[in-house]
Amino acid sequence: MQEKKKLALVVQSGTVDKLYCAFILASTAVAMGWEAHLYFTFWGLQSLVKGAMEKAGLPNEYKHLEEPMNKNLQRMKYPTPYEMLKRLKSSALFKIYACTPTMEMFGTKKEDLIPEVDELVGAATFLNIAADSDVNLFI
Amino acid sequence: MQEKKKLALVVQSGTVDKLYCAFILASTAVAMGWEAHLYFTFWGLQSLVKGAMEKAGLPNEYKHLEEPMNKNLQRMKYPTPYEMLKRLKSSALFKIYACTPTMEMFGTKKEDLIPEVDELVGAATFLNIAADSDVNLFI
Amino acid sequence: MQEKKKLALVVQSGTVDKLYCAFILASTAVAMGWEAHLYFTFWGLQSLVKGAMEKAGLPNEYKHLEEPMNKNLQRMKYPTPYEMLKRLKSSALFKIYACTPTMEMFGTKKEDLIPEVDELVGAATFLNIAADSDVNLFI
Repeated sequence: MQEKKKLALVVQSGTVDKLYCAFILASTAVAMGWEAHLYFTFWGLQSLVKGAMEKAGLPNEYKHLEEPMNKNLQRMKYPTPYEMLKRLKSSALFKIYACTPTMEMFGTKKEDLIPEVDELVGAATFLNIAADSDVNLFI
Repeated sequence: MQEKKKLALVVQSGTVDKLYCAFILASTAVAMGWEAHLYFTFWGLQSLVKGAMEKAGLPNEYKHLEEPMNKNLQRMKYPTPYEMLKRLKSSALFKIYACTPTMEMFGTKKEDLIPEVDELVGAATFLNIAADSDVNLFI
Repeated sequence: MQEKKKLALVVQSGTVDKLYCAFILASTAVAMGWEAHLYFTFWGLQSLVKGAMEKAGLPNEYKHLEEPMNKNLQRMKYPTPYEMLKRLKSSALFKIYACTPTMEMFGTKKEDLIPEVDELVGAATFLNIAADSDVNLFI
């Protein structure tokens, strides 16, 4: 049997534009039957803190586009990033990793994170997954 | 016959430093006989709106370097990002894709985009191209 | 004999969060016996100017997190990005490349750069290394 294709993302950013990129790519990959492995680090990791992802906005340089974008998203009934993450969790193809060095740097505890996180791991785990993936991106 | 090497870029940024990275990598790849596939999303997609790429500047944090950089570029007779894009279009190895989910989010229409865009596609098309590429980067 | 695994990074950013990402990934890769090839361009290249990396801070949007992060890093006795770079240089697996087009754009001379830089090269050298690598990321 042929092995599944794999997408591996480092999610370093926590702004809503980058979170959408990550979850749209992951949702598309999973819909195509690929595995999707998302490794959250730095500001991406911070967005996994309970309550944080709902507050994510656009970067300062694009703040003026937040209101028209949000209106379009509501009109389209587009899911929020956290809703996309929760839908993705219904698939066994989707895995979320929290970066342990970042957690130490910012004093983030396991219990601070949303329950959807699969594993707390270091960069070695991510590199091994990435080396075995078809598409790797740093977002 | 050996298949051509392939470069696949997600161009998510619209600032001039990132556009130069994308087009320098693409120009180099094409000069080496590789295919170069550029998928423009979010602020990258916005830079494909007619008249937008000519106005792209440095990110706010680096605005103070814009004037010295522009002077050096003029002295070097360096092409602008849009000039690089137009030169690249003379090669059949170079393709530009506009991200349809971004177009919906921002209410961007096909007729708003520069005529050099090859195709309007979703993330599935990009992932299939990327899985078949030698180098994938998210810019 | 099996060939070594390879990590190839474009380091386009010069903020301390991105530099940590680059050097943590590179240190992890080298510890696993992989080669790590880092190609510094734009703001990444600027951080290779003598004295610059020591001054790198967080991006403006996250400036308020700089003090708590630095306190944690000191408590953990975490190395600075430049200390990580110098430790990595003790390994023959680690190579630093400075992007020559960026040097021209910003009028940066070879003698302006830290002595740890291995080679001054253009994008073609990077693309050839990346095409031969297991993991490529643009940071």
